Amino acid sequence: MQHKEYDHIILLAHGSPDPLWKKPFEALYEQAVEFYGSDHSSLAYMELTTPTLEDVVGQLDEKITKVAVLPLFFAVGRHLRQDVPAQIDALQNEHLQIDLLPPIGDDELVKKAMYTAIARHLGREQ
Amino acid sequence: MQHKEYDHIILLAHGSPDPLWKKPFEALYEQAVEFYGSDHSSLAYMELTTPTLEDVVGQLDEKITKVAVLPLFFAVGRHLRQDVPAQIDALQNEHLQIDLLPPIGDDELVKKAMYTAIARHLGREQ
Repeated sequence: MQHKEYDHIILLAHGSPDPLWKKPFEALYEQAVEFYGSDHSSLAYMELTTPTLEDVVGQLDEKITKVAVLPLFFAVGRHLRQDVPAQIDALQNEHLQIDLLPPIGDDELVKKAMYTAIARHLGREQ
Repeated sequence: MQHKEYDHIILLAHGSPDPLWKKPFEALYEQAVEFYGSDHSSLAYMELTTPTLEDVVGQLDEKITKVAVLPLFFAVGRHLRQDVPAQIDALQNEHLQIDLLPPIGDDELVKKAMYTAIARHLGREQ
């Protein structure tokens, strides 16, 4: 049996008031739920729409003690250096550890997939 | 020999005044240049920093006639539905066709890589 690093993962997207913009994040979340169940994953938005990180953490089962926040971002800017860490600091307590992971765009497999997508449009397969 | 769909691909990121935010997009672009040469790829930003799409298209060799704009975005919102198509309309002419591709986050391989990244953080490999 593999090591289960976190009890729960929160996918955190930037947020937009545009419902169409939210669709791919919802689709990613729905697939995570299909694989792992809604006990193990949530979707939250940093701003401009709900649920917020506070909403999602407030609804976690009290048995959950170790949570990861995985930003659905390509890059770390002010939001992930300042705003989100401050939100997380306010939400953590002695029973609940919340780790902020690097953004999903920084994942080696995701980066490799992006290179391959670019190559394909240029008519070259890697 | 494979079909070469486009002469040139412009990677289009949202843009931020934060130089640290720009780094992963620059890294993606540098790898594209390493593979395909700077004749075949450019990096542009939609707002808040340079080079803009206008800057990049203005510097294309006149032999280039078929260009793709690949948004380094997860989702299509107002920017990709309205702002960028309007920019492209203004830049196209009878010698230069510019196609706006779906965002890179919509690529099947990129989506699969994102699912795998999520699975890994939950200690489950797909």
